[in-house]
Amino acid sequence: MRQLPAQPFRSHPFDDDKLKEECGVFGVIGVADAANFVALGMHALQHRGQEAGGIVAHDPVEGFNSARRFGYVRDNFTKASLMETLPGPIGIGHVRYSTAGSKGNTAIRDVQPFFGEFSMGGCAIAHNGNITNAAALRRELIERGSIFQSSSDSECIIHLMARSIQKNIPERMKDALRRVEGAFSVVAMTRTKLIGVRDPLGVRPLVLGRVGEGWALSSETCGLDIIGAEFIREIDPGEMVVIDAKGIESFRPFEQRKSRFCIFEHVYFSRPDSILGGRSVYETRRQIGVELAKEAPVEADLVCPVPDSGTPAAIGYSQESGIPYAMGIIRNQYMGRTFIEPTEQIRNMGVRLKLNVNRGLIKGKRIILVDDSVVRGTTSMKIKEMILDAGAAEVHFRIASPPTAWPCFYGVDTPEKEKLLASTMTEDEMRDFIGVDSLKFISLDGLYRAAGEAKGRDNASPQYCDACFSGDYPVAPSDQLEKGFQLKAAE
Amino acid sequence: MRQLPAQPFRSHPFDDDKLKEECGVFGVIGVADAANFVALGMHALQHRGQEAGGIVAHDPVEGFNSARRFGYVRDNFTKASLMETLPGPIGIGHVRYSTAGSKGNTAIRDVQPFFGEFSMGGCAIAHNGNITNAAALRRELIERGSIFQSSSDSECIIHLMARSIQKNIPERMKDALRRVEGAFSVVAMTRTKLIGVRDPLGVRPLVLGRVGEGWALSSETCGLDIIGAEFIREIDPGEMVVIDAKGIESFRPFEQRKSRFCIFEHVYFSRPDSILGGRSVYETRRQIGVELAKEAPVEADLVCPVPDSGTPAAIGYSQESGIPYAMGIIRNQYMGRTFIEPTEQIRNMGVRLKLNVNRGLIKGKRIILVDDSVVRGTTSMKIKEMILDAGAAEVHFRIASPPTAWPCFYGVDTPEKEKLLASTMTEDEMRDFIGVDSLKFISLDGLYRAAGEAKGRDNASPQYCDACFSGDYPVAPSDQLEKGFQLKAAE
Amino acid sequence: MRQLPAQPFRSHPFDDDKLKEECGVFGVIGVADAANFVALGMHALQHRGQEAGGIVAHDPVEGFNSARRFGYVRDNFTKASLMETLPGPIGIGHVRYSTAGSKGNTAIRDVQPFFGEFSMGGCAIAHNGNITNAAALRRELIERGSIFQSSSDSECIIHLMARSIQKNIPERMKDALRRVEGAFSVVAMTRTKLIGVRDPLGVRPLVLGRVGEGWALSSETCGLDIIGAEFIREIDPGEMVVIDAKGIESFRPFEQRKSRFCIFEHVYFSRPDSILGGRSVYETRRQIGVELAKEAPVEADLVCPVPDSGTPAAIGYSQESGIPYAMGIIRNQYMGRTFIEPTEQIRNMGVRLKLNVNRGLIKGKRIILVDDSVVRGTTSMKIKEMILDAGAAEVHFRIASPPTAWPCFYGVDTPEKEKLLASTMTEDEMRDFIGVDSLKFISLDGLYRAAGEAKGRDNASPQYCDACFSGDYPVAPSDQLEKGFQLKAAE
Amino acid sequence: MRQLPAQPFRSHPFDDDKLKEECGVFGVIGVADAANFVALGMHALQHRGQEAGGIVAHDPVEGFNSARRFGYVRDNFTKASLMETLPGPIGIGHVRYSTAGSKGNTAIRDVQPFFGEFSMGGCAIAHNGNITNAAALRRELIERGSIFQSSSDSECIIHLMARSIQKNIPERMKDALRRVEGAFSVVAMTRTKLIGVRDPLGVRPLVLGRVGEGWALSSETCGLDIIGAEFIREIDPGEMVVIDAKGIESFRPFEQRKSRFCIFEHVYFSRPDSILGGRSVYETRRQIGVELAKEAPVEADLVCPVPDSGTPAAIGYSQESGIPYAMGIIRNQYMGRTFIEPTEQIRNMGVRLKLNVNRGLIKGKRIILVDDSVVRGTTSMKIKEMILDAGAAEVHFRIASPPTAWPCFYGVDTPEKEKLLASTMTEDEMRDFIGVDSLKFISLDGLYRAAGEAKGRDNASPQYCDACFSGDYPVAPSDQLEKGFQLKAAE
Repeated sequence: MRQLPAQPFRSHPFDDDKLKEECGVFGVIGVADAANFVALGMHALQHRGQEAGGIVAHDPVEGFNSARRFGYVRDNFTKASLMETLPGPIGIGHVRYSTAGSKGNTAIRDVQPFFGEFSMGGCAIAHNGNITNAAALRRELIERGSIFQSSSDSECIIHLMARSIQKNIPERMKDALRRVEGAFSVVAMTRTKLIGVRDPLGVRPLVLGRVGEGWALSSETCGLDIIGAEFIREIDPGEMVVIDAKGIESFRPFEQRKSRFCIFEHVYFSRPDSILGGRSVYETRRQIGVELAKEAPVEADLVCPVPDSGTPAAIGYSQESGIPYAMGIIRNQYMGRTFIEPTEQIRNMGVRLKLNVNRGLIKGKRIILVDDSVVRGTTSMKIKEMILDAGAAEVHFRIASPPTAWPCFYGVDTPEKEKLLASTMTEDEMRDFIGVDSLKFISLDGLYRAAGEAKGRDNASPQYCDACFSGDYPVAPSDQLEKGFQLKAAE
Repeated sequence: MRQLPAQPFRSHPFDDDKLKEECGVFGVIGVADAANFVALGMHALQHRGQEAGGIVAHDPVEGFNSARRFGYVRDNFTKASLMETLPGPIGIGHVRYSTAGSKGNTAIRDVQPFFGEFSMGGCAIAHNGNITNAAALRRELIERGSIFQSSSDSECIIHLMARSIQKNIPERMKDALRRVEGAFSVVAMTRTKLIGVRDPLGVRPLVLGRVGEGWALSSETCGLDIIGAEFIREIDPGEMVVIDAKGIESFRPFEQRKSRFCIFEHVYFSRPDSILGGRSVYETRRQIGVELAKEAPVEADLVCPVPDSGTPAAIGYSQESGIPYAMGIIRNQYMGRTFIEPTEQIRNMGVRLKLNVNRGLIKGKRIILVDDSVVRGTTSMKIKEMILDAGAAEVHFRIASPPTAWPCFYGVDTPEKEKLLASTMTEDEMRDFIGVDSLKFISLDGLYRAAGEAKGRDNASPQYCDACFSGDYPVAPSDQLEKGFQLKAAE
Repeated sequence: MRQLPAQPFRSHPFDDDKLKEECGVFGVIGVADAANFVALGMHALQHRGQEAGGIVAHDPVEGFNSARRFGYVRDNFTKASLMETLPGPIGIGHVRYSTAGSKGNTAIRDVQPFFGEFSMGGCAIAHNGNITNAAALRRELIERGSIFQSSSDSECIIHLMARSIQKNIPERMKDALRRVEGAFSVVAMTRTKLIGVRDPLGVRPLVLGRVGEGWALSSETCGLDIIGAEFIREIDPGEMVVIDAKGIESFRPFEQRKSRFCIFEHVYFSRPDSILGGRSVYETRRQIGVELAKEAPVEADLVCPVPDSGTPAAIGYSQESGIPYAMGIIRNQYMGRTFIEPTEQIRNMGVRLKLNVNRGLIKGKRIILVDDSVVRGTTSMKIKEMILDAGAAEVHFRIASPPTAWPCFYGVDTPEKEKLLASTMTEDEMRDFIGVDSLKFISLDGLYRAAGEAKGRDNASPQYCDACFSGDYPVAPSDQLEKGFQLKAAE
Repeated sequence: MRQLPAQPFRSHPFDDDKLKEECGVFGVIGVADAANFVALGMHALQHRGQEAGGIVAHDPVEGFNSARRFGYVRDNFTKASLMETLPGPIGIGHVRYSTAGSKGNTAIRDVQPFFGEFSMGGCAIAHNGNITNAAALRRELIERGSIFQSSSDSECIIHLMARSIQKNIPERMKDALRRVEGAFSVVAMTRTKLIGVRDPLGVRPLVLGRVGEGWALSSETCGLDIIGAEFIREIDPGEMVVIDAKGIESFRPFEQRKSRFCIFEHVYFSRPDSILGGRSVYETRRQIGVELAKEAPVEADLVCPVPDSGTPAAIGYSQESGIPYAMGIIRNQYMGRTFIEPTEQIRNMGVRLKLNVNRGLIKGKRIILVDDSVVRGTTSMKIKEMILDAGAAEVHFRIASPPTAWPCFYGVDTPEKEKLLASTMTEDEMRDFIGVDSLKFISLDGLYRAAGEAKGRDNASPQYCDACFSGDYPVAPSDQLEKGFQLKAAE
């Protein structure tokens, strides 16, 4: 059943031309007023989901309490009047962009964490990733009498748990997650426990931190930094940790597999100040720029980032090439999510609401623009026009990722395959389509090198999930296949 | 899990001293933009529940849509922007005061209609009444893997339906309602059908009307009047009607029992312009005043109603006694639900915010005050004080119902037994407690006579449910008995 | 300059067919947290203006503070968060319907009290009435360099005060009010004084009360009742009272004239529980019904009020005629200001949103309907239709005021003369237009008798302002005359 | 009179440690729906004032209309429902931080534009700057009968205009502005004209642009860019332009003086993509970094900006010194104005809400931090702590402006002199206070060189206003002197 959001969310002028992470998860146990920490963690993870957020907390006296809100964490989960309704020493939170089920039309009931009251007590879960067999599981559960409250794939997990015959919640969660395919980093809580799990491939990140006498779980390390937690380690692919007053227990409920962490987390999704797989994300991105400058040099006067995500790679490109780095495009820092343009005339000014070219700098110069990715190509065209309007002599695009030619089914919001520019054009065709003097993407091997794999991609057994670039899906997207999605033909 | 309401709802100064109906239900099929009609019907039934309301509508193209809001119907379900999200020719609605589960702390998720997606399609239900074995059913359903979303007793019905093995929704509803004990008038809908059911005793009202080419179901006839529908008939106790494009089918899914309609609907709950059991509610109330004047005459100068519910009985008392009727107490028509008094000093003025004595009229007079009921007695004391402050010579209370000595478990919000004044005091003790010159309640037989039973109550087989006066509960309140409630000892 | 209201205010279905009082004023001095008392007084005076309200308070430490809000007092001036911003022992308040300047489109800047900072300190004023030479004064003041902030006639007073050369505020107010023509009951405050003034004719009411150690001024006595103040006396026509810590001083700043209190205050504007000119308003209205029954008897089965304003006169008519009084029309108590009907189809149901006929009672009966006035006649027609639809055998209208044939220029919102039914039709023509079996208005003499003038109207020197009935304007409406308004030709 | 803001505005964690521009002004004439353009211009100027904004527009049929709102332009002046209330081809707008009168407690009535209805028609004005003799003017105007509606210094202008005896509005504005001392860039409008004025020293910027057939005035060129207007020229110091359908007229109403543009506009206030005095602001800032590297070199591993305002100077420092540029501190892009921390514990995390150190990068490195200014020094200390916590080996601060030792009285919100760190400490003392390895400010001459004055500051006749650094106030701050402010002793 549809339920309209309380307020409409128009996207950024460029939002339809970026891949979007769908979720961030956070949990904490063993601290006073856990929900405050959860809110801070969610604020640090806001880049992983801006549409809505939710918190569940548990207090021995007040029981489970929850709040779900559309909009930014800072606008909702900062008010004392709301936070006071979420007492207790355990809490989990979730920020989301949108779900598989109802894109662009999220109901508040689709906002996680999801909660179930079982005979042995309540359980709340927050899920980052995407369950690739959710449609089949949902059909089966409805047939057996479960009532779904949302259109989210993640709700399957809590219904599977409700129907498990195990006598405690961690065991029920193992039961449930063994039925689930796809990508999942899950943070869950009971009245006394905080639980974290990553799928066997470890597609989405999840890290463990120590905060005072308590513990925190976060999608990224930046969520630990904001609460002053010490980063202990990543949760391993296929690991479940159960934390309570007695400490941490670790389980391996799934069959062992080689990990396939999402390489796009390095390119774009994660925050530059996070540490993934022992590497600074910022440094990986700067190194991508270095690799790009080696792979695709060009004579020019200035290297300019497309703000803000192209910045580290532009710095690297400048450092490797010796061409000066400059802020050729200035972002309006007061541009929020919504600028509902009032007239057609104004709407046409779209891109100017967010970015402005630094005219004095650009005029007559040969400009290298460094961007993180090309999805539909529409943004690249608009930026090229702005730069040329300002009098640039040449425009050269350098892209900090390989061509994005395949959709992601593991928790990232991608357009359909046909709408991905790289699925229908070669690099040269894209250059002509966008209308720039040159356009070069980093190679897949170059990206792997920047991410620390000195020998590049191991094609026999790739170190990362790079399906969006390679079409090599490590988990069969079964719901999609049922709907007619065609895998890459064997070569 | 608790979820705080979006806005606090303070009660009227006197709200804690009235019994409160918990719900009103309404449904319509076969009209364009059914939700508009549902909103009007809910507005007419607002006296049955002021805390929140919800509508579900179905459109062949747009599917099921819903909206739930705290506050008055007129403040929410009148906005074109909201109503446009509820298209289609079938809709049901519900207004509620609060549920058994979470009194005074309703979460939006407790607001009906409830919805379930079954394998054969969606179903929404709205329930007026109370399920007396809800706690036991809930335990059983959770044990078997159902996840409850609300604290409402009514949610059991939709889960029982989800687990039924019947192949169509009306049959699943029969299955479910046969497991349910207590009072229920249910309005439900599928993609093509509108369904109405009353429990075998017919405790709560439900009527059928014809609106253009379509049909309407409403708790009371005033809900039909507002949409210009013709009142066809009451749904019988124990009857289920299933209405679709082909017409109305009637079923009798329950074992036949003698009906026991709630007599308090006549005294207070229903609107005076409704017709119950073929009788004008206004006329019954006026007749109560006539009976009271016969049973409990007193010499006085003026008969004044306690506004607004005492008015018809006061008119009847005046007409029978010949003592002039007068508006001795004036109600502030701008007094809404909420007047959050800012200081202690002001809070003590509580009653003046709502009522003012017509001083010029009252001074030096012997006043008969006619009120509908005495629950805790606190209101009666405050009104007595106001009247005496204004210089009345004598104050005589006449009450249009027998002493309320027992709680209701069939969908009315009553204080615990110990807090009911009549459960601990005789009529004379109450008179002294309230501090008036005389205090008389109508007799139970007098009330039955006013309600059209010329011979009064048939004690062997009472014509109405009058448990709140008599302690004679027609359905065993099993959840309450389990919690320790003591039935009246056999005499 | 126009400024749109923060929220739109749709009128009641019948609001366009009633005369509307434009303002109520209230002030208090010498109590802790005066603003709380002011809010209560404004709540009691809400019937005199529902569109907006404002409070100014002064505290020795915090200085002057103000708040202005659209909507009901109870929804705004009850929140502790707002009231805490209005500390101090002196405060005044104002409720308004709309001003002469910007009907239906009130800006928050038109909401009183108005405030001016003079060299000897600040002053706030609240005005009930209408200044008939406001346009001329405004022109003159602008010419001399005053900047108006509102479109309100009342703002002239504060500018005239700002330009006075008197050295204290009460003297400046005398200066200003001597320049002003029309009707005014003004409540004003300085840092230490509360001031009340009535125009020489005393067209609008203003009363003085004692509350604890302090004093209150209120448009009506019901404003005193709600705060528990003792009614001391009316402010005399042409009197100014200045109240401070030392007590009350009384001045007579104007040339003495015979008073002409607005008789429509008795008929409709004031609350029935107020006392005007030593008489209970309720009792005057009941007496109007008695006079009507004598002047215009008719055989019938029931006397029914048009709720709620026709009720006292209907009671009087029933008592004089011996025909039983009955609630033939029931008002929906949850009908607020706004019911924005979503579709054309629903909009046509307009009147049913507010009123419902008590069908069981009306069918086959001859009904006398008692209403307070006929303005455009549109309401009367709708009500007649409802009554006939319900099966009434005959419908007889009895109106508790003479025909309203002239607009009011003294602070009441009336349609233009041509839109007043009585300005273009005789009583018989109105009867045929409305389509009822009979229609009778009370005579002007009958109204005066009910208001305590045993000999009726003294045509040589009328006791009341009755310009809306008689066209006899006690103060020349000079702005209107300039705009072309034609006075009644001398007879 | 105080009026509390509709919503509280908490400052950024660092807002109390930055100088804040107080206003931006924008106007447009000769375009359809001018208010849309004004809103866009205000959005581009949002960095000049984030607390509130207002627009006045004029339409030949609808007259003058206005809207004033707290909060960001994008959250208010983008809604069609609001913008439709502001029709017409002329409009002006204003964004503000706060006024001299009521810092941190702005009432909506303090929000510009201010409006006055004169006998020859209405006039609205928007003012950037500060009137240094406002208090004296205000006293005089009140004495003569003017009523002030705000606590803003800017309101004096409209009252002076109201009292002018000139017969047209531009002449009245000349009259008024000749009475005014201090800094002012004013944009004003009548029914047919758009007017722009700069004070004789030209302290605040104001530029003219051509948009289609119409014209625009804007505080900075970035306001022209966003609406696609062509930058024509700056309004000269001491110039008034009057634009209507016939074109532009230029006047010089003031005695000629040498210009003294605010040099801090180059350092911090203006946007990097604006062009001031023919120079790219970004380029000037980068050049400041170059000068700093020459004046204050140091051996280190990385040059990191304090985001975002230190970025261009850090790039320049890196380029001149050859030390690599790096993003050592990451700003949370979802940090808005408000993060009302719920508990003491969380509040102490203040700085982490906005910034996070890029730990992987910083550890073990010698870091040069480039910031735009040091006001109180509190921010610098917090940032130093974060950097050291992350394991930096050395921390060297380089500041892109000279020590800020004097308050600004020309439209910038500065702390009192005693709270400016540089007014009480030498550079070395500040280094020790902040606790860093070295701390160097650019010299005043170095700053002038970076701003294009090859020979540095002309001490005999300085090219800029640099009072905040030098104590050399080009206009006597007369209201401040009256309150006891001590000018710098002659050397």
